[in-house]
Amino acid sequence: MDKKEFALQEHEKWQGKIEVISRCKVETPEQLSVAYTPGVAEPCLKISEDVDLSYKYTRRHNMVAVVTDGTAVLGLGDIGPEAGMPVMEGKCVLFKEFGGVDAFPLCVRSKDVDDIVKTVSLLAGSFGGVNLEDISAPRCFEIERKLKECCDIPIFHDDQHGTAVVTVAAMINALKLTGRKLEDIRVVTSGAGAAGIAIIKLLVSMGLKNVIMCDRTGAIYEGREGLNAEKEEMAKITNLEKKAGSLADMLVGADVFIGVSAPGTVTEEMVKTMAKDPILFPMANPVPEIMPDLAKAAGAAVVGTGRSDFPNQINNVLAFPGIFRGALDVRAKDINDEMKLAAAYAIAGLVSDEDLNPEYIIPNPFDKRVGKAVAEAVAEAARNTGVNRI
Amino acid sequence: MDKKEFALQEHEKWQGKIEVISRCKVETPEQLSVAYTPGVAEPCLKISEDVDLSYKYTRRHNMVAVVTDGTAVLGLGDIGPEAGMPVMEGKCVLFKEFGGVDAFPLCVRSKDVDDIVKTVSLLAGSFGGVNLEDISAPRCFEIERKLKECCDIPIFHDDQHGTAVVTVAAMINALKLTGRKLEDIRVVTSGAGAAGIAIIKLLVSMGLKNVIMCDRTGAIYEGREGLNAEKEEMAKITNLEKKAGSLADMLVGADVFIGVSAPGTVTEEMVKTMAKDPILFPMANPVPEIMPDLAKAAGAAVVGTGRSDFPNQINNVLAFPGIFRGALDVRAKDINDEMKLAAAYAIAGLVSDEDLNPEYIIPNPFDKRVGKAVAEAVAEAARNTGVNRI
Repeated sequence: MDKKEFALQEHEKWQGKIEVISRCKVETPEQLSVAYTPGVAEPCLKISEDVDLSYKYTRRHNMVAVVTDGTAVLGLGDIGPEAGMPVMEGKCVLFKEFGGVDAFPLCVRSKDVDDIVKTVSLLAGSFGGVNLEDISAPRCFEIERKLKECCDIPIFHDDQHGTAVVTVAAMINALKLTGRKLEDIRVVTSGAGAAGIAIIKLLVSMGLKNVIMCDRTGAIYEGREGLNAEKEEMAKITNLEKKAGSLADMLVGADVFIGVSAPGTVTEEMVKTMAKDPILFPMANPVPEIMPDLAKAAGAAVVGTGRSDFPNQINNVLAFPGIFRGALDVRAKDINDEMKLAAAYAIAGLVSDEDLNPEYIIPNPFDKRVGKAVAEAVAEAARNTGVNRI
Repeated sequence: MDKKEFALQEHEKWQGKIEVISRCKVETPEQLSVAYTPGVAEPCLKISEDVDLSYKYTRRHNMVAVVTDGTAVLGLGDIGPEAGMPVMEGKCVLFKEFGGVDAFPLCVRSKDVDDIVKTVSLLAGSFGGVNLEDISAPRCFEIERKLKECCDIPIFHDDQHGTAVVTVAAMINALKLTGRKLEDIRVVTSGAGAAGIAIIKLLVSMGLKNVIMCDRTGAIYEGREGLNAEKEEMAKITNLEKKAGSLADMLVGADVFIGVSAPGTVTEEMVKTMAKDPILFPMANPVPEIMPDLAKAAGAAVVGTGRSDFPNQINNVLAFPGIFRGALDVRAKDINDEMKLAAAYAIAGLVSDEDLNPEYIIPNPFDKRVGKAVAEAVAEAARNTGVNRI
């Protein structure tokens, strides 16, 4: 049986990848009278006096909504909310297995930004956080921004920020390995969608100065025609020399390549024009912008991809379970940049100086230390920035 | 420790009464590649071709949303969505323990009918059914009606229809026990809210002709001033002689009293004026319209209440878990009157003629046979009325 058939068969067998279970017994009238009427009236009354007690007396303290509209599911595009559900259920499984977080999938039958914002905001009292997933750009930016404004719980678009955190973690160790400083290097991206923009924003907040983002048209610079609002915003903080040209042009002399675009965008020849010992993160999935062996042959010092069958897998599962675990542990009102950076440093820090080498710049996704380390760092950053409730 | 303190302490200990767990393992890269990328793309693609396959490849086939706005929680009134959550979680526990149904609580931060309708309808693709709960009348009627119009999954307001089904089940056996026929009797209610209206509608659909509903003002009749839309509608199919007067006036000669109102509404003197061997269902909770011992002393042949510490507890848990179990089993698009009646007859049918007596007209809520019997009857009725998908 081929892999696709097997995946279908397994999904049919599972009959859904998540399940809701009971944490209390109702096998006797006495038990029923505590978990349900009349006993249940007591926690209800307490919460009605102080809404924050919902974290104490209900599952809210550990519950995250995984929300999509099905418009950008995997690489499949706009396949609709119901068709996005297998991915959302999978995400919920990862939340539980890697972070101990209860996550519940909600697939919204609307592509309208305000519909989605309203739906999620009206349900914010039932959850301790919201993970936005597989929502197409640029709508995802507006949805996230509006939700952050109107909700008192963390709103986190994993395709942006989860990817950014893990990429930054890999970058921290790749720079260490090759003896570079973020302030001194030049970074070039292929791709200026949700992930690319979030990665660059986070790196800039850390001190990166010299960076050029490329889309299908080539380098993005201030004043270029046809830029959407997000790219225009990025043009103000990147490519300060307003260079025009192709991705190949931009890569000449660059220290780092970050790919969040399409297979085969980068050739061996292009890698050869980069600075000595370049760092490449071709993360297009399942086929990277350039295959790791080709990049290495062309002189790459470090390569990280999205794939599990090569070294240095840059996998979001290293970030989002621990980030939400930490945020929930302090009943955070937000997940801010400080918390994201704390997560990135925590992930990077798990690779010791002795172990650090070109094939090991980032922990394995199944490294059991990751979730806890990220959660603790994120919780501390939340406390330091005052977004914690406890 | 008193019972209220104990209930609080238990709720704090449980840290939420529900939990989301994983039904598949993701302990190895291979397992991850089936449950998540790239394997998960296959069920996504199948569902994008045929949305009904969401029942096959995701948990939708067993998943019910328990939705409230927190406006009519228990007898506590409008305490807000977060404060309603302990009840909703409790309901989800009952769904699982008594019906094997996964249920997830959603507390909506709006009292606006259209907000609630839109929120639920946009999420309908993530669930196999919706249980509305503790929403105040008359808004609950409009919300249910609008949702039934725009959703392709069952919408069921348990406070109305669950109560109606169990009351009708008790009625079927009480009539059998006292040798009456529904067509011949006169029924009087105290209470014309969500539950009272649903009970009477269901009984009328079964052939009840002579019925008078009373609210705080007294008998409801066509043309009475100040009736809301729902009571006006009921006035057209009840009290056909347009009698005016108090509850006490209406009870004279009545065969059956149904109470869904307030403690102490009915006195022994009033019971003595009813027909010989009257049937009384004083279901106000926790204190009934008249206590069973007083009703018996005044001549009642059969008494059923909402309480677990008296015989004949009329408890919704006898109905809703099995009703949804049956509806989900055939992937029903609706829960219609035929399905509700099938549930009522299934519940009543579990009390054998030999066992039937004034202290046992309805099964105990913990009777293990109930859920299965109700589910089978409801599934069959769904098939007979063509609202099944499979």
